[in-house]
Amino acid sequence: MCIGTLAPSCIYRKQSQLRGAIYMKSEINLRVLLASRPVGYPTEDDFDIVESPIPVPSEGEVLVKNEWLSLDPYMRGRMNNQRSYAEPVSIGEVMVGGSVGTVVHSRTPRFCVGEVVEGRLGWQSYALSSGSDLRKVDKSLGPIQTSIGVLGMPGLTGYFGFLDVCEPSPGDTVVVSAASGAVGQVVGQIARIMGCHVVGTVGSDDKLSYIVEELGFNVGINYKSQDIGKSLDKACPQGIDVYFDNVGGFVTDAVLDRINTGARISVCGQISQYNLAEPELAPRNMGVLTRTQSKMEGFLVTRYQSRFEEGRQRMARWIQEGELRYREYVVEGLENAPKTFIGMLNGENLGKTLIKVST
Amino acid sequence: MCIGTLAPSCIYRKQSQLRGAIYMKSEINLRVLLASRPVGYPTEDDFDIVESPIPVPSEGEVLVKNEWLSLDPYMRGRMNNQRSYAEPVSIGEVMVGGSVGTVVHSRTPRFCVGEVVEGRLGWQSYALSSGSDLRKVDKSLGPIQTSIGVLGMPGLTGYFGFLDVCEPSPGDTVVVSAASGAVGQVVGQIARIMGCHVVGTVGSDDKLSYIVEELGFNVGINYKSQDIGKSLDKACPQGIDVYFDNVGGFVTDAVLDRINTGARISVCGQISQYNLAEPELAPRNMGVLTRTQSKMEGFLVTRYQSRFEEGRQRMARWIQEGELRYREYVVEGLENAPKTFIGMLNGENLGKTLIKVST
Repeated sequence: MCIGTLAPSCIYRKQSQLRGAIYMKSEINLRVLLASRPVGYPTEDDFDIVESPIPVPSEGEVLVKNEWLSLDPYMRGRMNNQRSYAEPVSIGEVMVGGSVGTVVHSRTPRFCVGEVVEGRLGWQSYALSSGSDLRKVDKSLGPIQTSIGVLGMPGLTGYFGFLDVCEPSPGDTVVVSAASGAVGQVVGQIARIMGCHVVGTVGSDDKLSYIVEELGFNVGINYKSQDIGKSLDKACPQGIDVYFDNVGGFVTDAVLDRINTGARISVCGQISQYNLAEPELAPRNMGVLTRTQSKMEGFLVTRYQSRFEEGRQRMARWIQEGELRYREYVVEGLENAPKTFIGMLNGENLGKTLIKVST
Repeated sequence: MCIGTLAPSCIYRKQSQLRGAIYMKSEINLRVLLASRPVGYPTEDDFDIVESPIPVPSEGEVLVKNEWLSLDPYMRGRMNNQRSYAEPVSIGEVMVGGSVGTVVHSRTPRFCVGEVVEGRLGWQSYALSSGSDLRKVDKSLGPIQTSIGVLGMPGLTGYFGFLDVCEPSPGDTVVVSAASGAVGQVVGQIARIMGCHVVGTVGSDDKLSYIVEELGFNVGINYKSQDIGKSLDKACPQGIDVYFDNVGGFVTDAVLDRINTGARISVCGQISQYNLAEPELAPRNMGVLTRTQSKMEGFLVTRYQSRFEEGRQRMARWIQEGELRYREYVVEGLENAPKTFIGMLNGENLGKTLIKVST
């Protein structure tokens, strides 16, 4: 419950808060910990699932009951003990991840019991937070899990990574890899909305049907069953102006062979490389950037933090107008997070992968 | 000589022009032709040196007697029969190259006999031109061969490729590969002028001394005799903000391992790769662009054509002020162009490689 000075937005809820905390003290906190650092693809043995008591917030903290957990490819990187843009997860520590849930106990005036918040609360059913990394979710924009999906980190990654890093123009030929994924589906549809010729690469015929028939991509390519080079030649008769890369590897090589002068490539992810025990050897091909005077840029969505609300509002409107669709791949139960995560890395899930942590 | 309507700048020279053409009709036109497409490093057998009659300009054309020929790494690419930003040289055709010389016969009012011009006139002692690709050289800026060196294509490549593509700031740590070459020496000195910490990689101790002692680089690294990784660690204690890449290959890999967040990399050349019979295999490392939110951009100097005069004037002033130095590696005689070119590809020449075609 809220204690201390109540923030104005909390006042009208005061009665309900005064009824006390809204969780059962008999419940446990299910947590998924990193048990070992995978070599190559993770296995379920790399995770420990443990039951802990529900923590109690100290002064200034809130307790959040997670409802939805987002599973994203970047988490694979956090399982390694190597330098990156963020610290690796330590062995025995709860896996990192974005989630959305409900404040069930508050000892800060900034959050009230019952408020829906999202943040990096980890693979666990309950999480303590100082509140500094929590954002209150506007439920009018859509189902709350969209706050960690199409209207959250993955969607905003697609929105800014495409519009700002790729600098697209109407008429551009845009190729998106992992096109049915949480990021790719957003990129391809924004490209369609702005009048680009949109080509997506995917790893199954179901995904191909989805991006073409439901999302309105012009062409889909199943890189597992089709010759990627020939398919790109056919799909991109005018060459490729923009490439939004989620995968790296041979798909990217084939795209680079076909970029036009002044092409723009955003390096969002390299999922084909994340689970290799040894780095993949490939012919060097950076000379293509010189020949075509093209730009390749990596980015993290956090770069655009000050503009997240712009992206969120615009995408919410497109969703309401039916211009922007999304699909979620939902698995119930936190205990299923490891195998669902591994399935995502293997390309088994269609759409944004989510764990329904609790009802 | 000038015929037709004389352009205003020609009028004062009319008397001398009326004395006729200023070359000896008994001279021959020495030409270096592409004889075969090299596999790996070119050999002298890949070139034919032939003697031809001096051509006679048709109406609208000029005849230029080449005085200096520029030898540049990009020419290696033109010897291959593969797609690039420019057409390959055909077998039996004169090798492409920039040169500076004197108009010795003019049948266009746009150029007068005696004028010094530069253009892509090829590896030959005389060349016909329609004039559309010729530029009159301002001899007040420096010795005329600077118009194809520090004040020409290579210098302007360094100037714009560094200032515009790399967006440097004072205090940035800047690494330049092939630092003593025609482009690298310009990049490193402009970086020094603007207050960067400048590190150059070179392939010999002579080159290392040159960039540090004569050009004022902060640190030089001989990648052939030193451990590139450890040397970069020592030379760049603050990490690397800008990389101007002329070489590609393992030097570039080592730099990429050490770039800071928001690094900017201009891909100017990949000379380490030009003479490989088979593409070199290397671990994929584009993920570093994402982790560091860095940008890698290829460019051709022609992109900045409308601003060449800006670069030329600014660099000429720096040269006059002693801020910008350059060194030329001069070999006399067009017949020596093939072996001098091969030597340049092998890293044997210190400074801008030039052939003194005629006196």
